[in-house]
Amino acid sequence: MSKFIEILTESWKQQDSLVCVGLDPVSERLPETLRKYPKPFLEFNRQIIDATAQWVCAFKPQIAHYSAIGAEDQLCDTIQYIKQNYPHIVVILDAKRGDIGSTATMYALEAFERYQADAVTVNPYLGGDALEPFLNYADKGVFILCRSSNPGSSDIQQLKSNNMSVAHLIATRATKQWNSNGNVGLVVGATWPEEVAAIRKLVGDMPFLVPAIGAQGGDLEAVLASGLTAERTGLLISVSRSIIYAGAESEGGEDFAAAAAVEAEKLCRHINQYRASK
Amino acid sequence: MSKFIEILTESWKQQDSLVCVGLDPVSERLPETLRKYPKPFLEFNRQIIDATAQWVCAFKPQIAHYSAIGAEDQLCDTIQYIKQNYPHIVVILDAKRGDIGSTATMYALEAFERYQADAVTVNPYLGGDALEPFLNYADKGVFILCRSSNPGSSDIQQLKSNNMSVAHLIATRATKQWNSNGNVGLVVGATWPEEVAAIRKLVGDMPFLVPAIGAQGGDLEAVLASGLTAERTGLLISVSRSIIYAGAESEGGEDFAAAAAVEAEKLCRHINQYRASK
Repeated sequence: MSKFIEILTESWKQQDSLVCVGLDPVSERLPETLRKYPKPFLEFNRQIIDATAQWVCAFKPQIAHYSAIGAEDQLCDTIQYIKQNYPHIVVILDAKRGDIGSTATMYALEAFERYQADAVTVNPYLGGDALEPFLNYADKGVFILCRSSNPGSSDIQQLKSNNMSVAHLIATRATKQWNSNGNVGLVVGATWPEEVAAIRKLVGDMPFLVPAIGAQGGDLEAVLASGLTAERTGLLISVSRSIIYAGAESEGGEDFAAAAAVEAEKLCRHINQYRASK
Repeated sequence: MSKFIEILTESWKQQDSLVCVGLDPVSERLPETLRKYPKPFLEFNRQIIDATAQWVCAFKPQIAHYSAIGAEDQLCDTIQYIKQNYPHIVVILDAKRGDIGSTATMYALEAFERYQADAVTVNPYLGGDALEPFLNYADKGVFILCRSSNPGSSDIQQLKSNNMSVAHLIATRATKQWNSNGNVGLVVGATWPEEVAAIRKLVGDMPFLVPAIGAQGGDLEAVLASGLTAERTGLLISVSRSIIYAGAESEGGEDFAAAAAVEAEKLCRHINQYRASK
């Protein structure tokens, strides 16, 4: 078991939560009161983190939200803030990187050295050798995009070759070829619970990062029924907008952090109720 | 014809070159004399750009080389330098981005608004709807990763479904579904000249960004034979390390810019000789 799987397993247990909160700040959606800060994303994130930390096992900043406007420093500061204050909570950098050779090495440096993330999301289109620079960080986690939550995910991911879909082939390689360091996870969208089930059968207890509950309409209980492992873990149920913007846009949005906490707690309890019933 | 294809076509013609120089600076490989500058990548790029500009149709900075060490400002400055001094030369941001919905929109903002690139490279694994936020910038170019140059590219890209490989399916969709703004190009690695030929047949005159001549061993004349259009253009032959580091590591490397110019000229002339002979 890799160090990453160890800290994730410990976080699932200690936090008693499978919730992953996405930190995807957008200037126009921040509460008015925060816009005057020199680092508004950091301030927003800090308050969201403090308010929701007790209900989550992981935070997942999505990098494009920062890089679109040159706010990389606020992403650095956010991750550092989590590590200093909540060292037992996992940080997944959602970047979906993918390139070959020395360029992939640069992307791995970006995620693991510059940002000090515990794990990163990557895109498998370029094949196994392109994943190696990430996988070689044996202490870090690598979540390989397997089945995305969008309608267009079927364009490539559902193509069948020798009776196996591309997504299932990725899952099979992830477990049979790419996991020699024991640090691989998969991204599987909540919009396809039947795929969560099929992929779970292919890969055993490998962790799944599952976006698209909430705003994108994935069915929570169907995903839990399909994806929980025998230990009733194995999933990171990732929610961004419906938690972090729960109160941000109503009447000045001063209560955004409290509103986010309410939503995170609700989701955590809903999941745990289901887990307890099985 | 989109504005991007217009400026690319004009650059091919005015510069009489199909050469694209990759701007992939790495701290350890910079000439000693540059390391004392506050912005060493910018200084390196500026000299490479000035030395090679007359032999190229495009420059292609690869973003991970900057983001790995927090040098985004030097990437911004580099692109601005090209636009101010060589406005007729195309700037392609090599980022291989790919995500869905509002996140893809953020990545498009990063490439086209923040960095002001003329074109960006993207990854098609998430399907057509994930490409839309890029394609909707009708004046900008979008180079979709089709067949990469690495050995592992066969893992996914060569899978066959209904007798068509994934790479060929991407090419077909690129031309039939995704090109309504006329702004699509493809990335096809020089290590597979037979693929360059097959994909050229599928997509007509669509521009190909072709990496992996040189350091990665692609056969230049085979690629030209396979990929040139009837106008003897259609290709951006992309070379990075074997040009920009041609002299950087020898004896202090002061002559790195002159050495880069020699290599760029050699490549440009070799290509043009071949074009003239057909």
